Amino acid sequence: MNEKFPLSKDIRLVFKHDPPGQWLPKLPPGCIKLSAGYPAPELTPSQELKEAVARLLDEEGDAPLQYIGSPRTPELKQYIRKRMAVRGMETAADELLVTAGACQAIDLIARILLDEEALVVIESPTYMEALEIFQNYTEQYLSIPIDENGLDTDRLEQVLLDRQRAGQALPRVLYTIPSFQNPTGTVMSLDRRKHLLRLAGDFDFLIIEDDAYGELAFEERPVPLKAMDADNRVIYVGSLSKVVAPGMRIGWVAGAEELITLLSWFKKDLGHPFGEATMAAFLEKTNFADRVDRLSGAYKEKSEAMTAALKKHFPESASWYTPDGGYFVWVHVPGIDAAALLQTALDAGVSYVPGKYFFLDEREGREFLRLSFSYVNETEIEEGIRLLGKVVSELK
Amino acid sequence: MNEKFPLSKDIRLVFKHDPPGQWLPKLPPGCIKLSAGYPAPELTPSQELKEAVARLLDEEGDAPLQYIGSPRTPELKQYIRKRMAVRGMETAADELLVTAGACQAIDLIARILLDEEALVVIESPTYMEALEIFQNYTEQYLSIPIDENGLDTDRLEQVLLDRQRAGQALPRVLYTIPSFQNPTGTVMSLDRRKHLLRLAGDFDFLIIEDDAYGELAFEERPVPLKAMDADNRVIYVGSLSKVVAPGMRIGWVAGAEELITLLSWFKKDLGHPFGEATMAAFLEKTNFADRVDRLSGAYKEKSEAMTAALKKHFPESASWYTPDGGYFVWVHVPGIDAAALLQTALDAGVSYVPGKYFFLDEREGREFLRLSFSYVNETEIEEGIRLLGKVVSELK
Repeated sequence: MNEKFPLSKDIRLVFKHDPPGQWLPKLPPGCIKLSAGYPAPELTPSQELKEAVARLLDEEGDAPLQYIGSPRTPELKQYIRKRMAVRGMETAADELLVTAGACQAIDLIARILLDEEALVVIESPTYMEALEIFQNYTEQYLSIPIDENGLDTDRLEQVLLDRQRAGQALPRVLYTIPSFQNPTGTVMSLDRRKHLLRLAGDFDFLIIEDDAYGELAFEERPVPLKAMDADNRVIYVGSLSKVVAPGMRIGWVAGAEELITLLSWFKKDLGHPFGEATMAAFLEKTNFADRVDRLSGAYKEKSEAMTAALKKHFPESASWYTPDGGYFVWVHVPGIDAAALLQTALDAGVSYVPGKYFFLDEREGREFLRLSFSYVNETEIEEGIRLLGKVVSELK
Repeated sequence: MNEKFPLSKDIRLVFKHDPPGQWLPKLPPGCIKLSAGYPAPELTPSQELKEAVARLLDEEGDAPLQYIGSPRTPELKQYIRKRMAVRGMETAADELLVTAGACQAIDLIARILLDEEALVVIESPTYMEALEIFQNYTEQYLSIPIDENGLDTDRLEQVLLDRQRAGQALPRVLYTIPSFQNPTGTVMSLDRRKHLLRLAGDFDFLIIEDDAYGELAFEERPVPLKAMDADNRVIYVGSLSKVVAPGMRIGWVAGAEELITLLSWFKKDLGHPFGEATMAAFLEKTNFADRVDRLSGAYKEKSEAMTAALKKHFPESASWYTPDGGYFVWVHVPGIDAAALLQTALDAGVSYVPGKYFFLDEREGREFLRLSFSYVNETEIEEGIRLLGKVVSELK
């Protein structure tokens, strides 16, 4: 704190962790953005949303612009509940809270469930924004590896048993993205899902299921943990960011009524009525199942273009999980420091996210890179992977 | 927690306070809402916002619907900075953060500045939503009374001196709404503003200045504390809720660069790009000074209608501060329990907010009621006050 900020008390005392890092330097103009985990521009319903706003405001006047008031706000909740029911998750109205994106949902959950004594299980690697949110509340983590079948639940069980025997604290919460995980693109197998739910009961922890990508399956959609959750141990976090538009900031959380009530106290005026009413107006004219099928088909093609290009342009030593859905390909480049390579790649005209940002211990991510096929078109994918393959090969 | 929520740990441990109360019962249909602190429906720019969205999406396509991307998002910040400059507050770009309404600003500030050891000075009465946010972080308050000239800074000084002499903790933060306060409608005098700034320096605390109503002056606009803040002790919270539309959820916080940087780490993905870009598109076609003048004129007329009706229909023993701006009239009804009277008033067809909700010690608010003239039209004001006057008089 310099002299411009005169408070003599150390305000950083209130902090629990260091500032989040800037992931990427400024991208040069024309750079092919394999780093961007954004939806495809051509699949973003700009015109439909424009029409939805016009209809909303013509029909309702000032109502959606007040703090509360649009009759469409409760309808949004109904659309989401119906869609959850299609996917095997029946929730009562009091078991669901609409939030300003999945991040607000995770943030509210963390406020309610976490304090300095809380131990949190995370996947390794995991979605770093969730981790940064958790780090506002606790410094205690168990990091359990992911493989091609998702979270390694045998390893988790072993760790929990060891801690139990040693009289160490057991986790309060586990955070997972079981379907088309960010960053690995992997899907937790059905057996592991069942195993994880058993462990949650045996060791008495809650599961935060982040299902942001669960709709975007190239073939069959995985069964959400929440759909198998007989004991109400799963707090389900959903999002329309990946299937409609992230800038609309519409997410939700579904769980036990008592928990949802607690979360709603903290949410209070932190929602955004106009965005919620607009989304409801959009959804009432949208065949959501058709939309999701169209998106899944388009992302499948992009994904195939990317893995084909990787085969063509990357050295033989590189490997990756072939995605069955979602936005990402997670690539292992043995012997290469992905973070150190980034500037060279940017200079060549292509970006990615170095693996280190997805690990609690950054060293584990050294030889990995996260590529997104979602935002770029097939020409950019081929060219981007060609450029990146060249940079990687030249370093070998 | 019942059996539906099986976690054996007491998750309420993480809480710092009881759930916020439900202020009002469900209002009967046709009820005249003197309780609603909402902008006037007829002054809400629905059609202008519809046009702004159409222009935004036609010109920018998917950009405002992504996480970041609209070139208008930084422009919104420039509009706000320009408007602050007009009011005597020069801020650098790094000294201002746009938030999802003033509540998010207050919430972010509380996260950064408050913990269980923090002592907070509040006005008595004060804006209860801010108090509820602070109560997520600390239970320690000094409650200093308001009179017709705003916060009683002599009283504050005396309390601080007494604490200093007694070796008691001094406050870290003071929260004030110096202009057209919610709920009292009062304005802190210039002398008291200067006195307060001196006290902040002498006793080393920060001031959160909530200026949500500051634009809406019926005559001259008061000088914000921030405009006299040579030592950067004031954290200024602004909002477009009262002058454009609360459902858009656009607020901001301006303060020392170091503080704004800290706040931005916590805000992260909790903004809403589409709302911000829409607001920028709206403002670029709006003469903001004209808009504010028009609103102030309209609210002045409503305010005068309300005080005239109060004179006509309320018993002689009732008294109130005549508002010079803002949305509210704060009425004292000696000998009457305003909370107990509410159901009778609702049955008669008129609502208000009982005073108790604005005090830390609810008993202090027993004989007060907050009336809003903002949302209702002049016919409703006359009729609402007539009905309420009848209810009050019958009880005398």
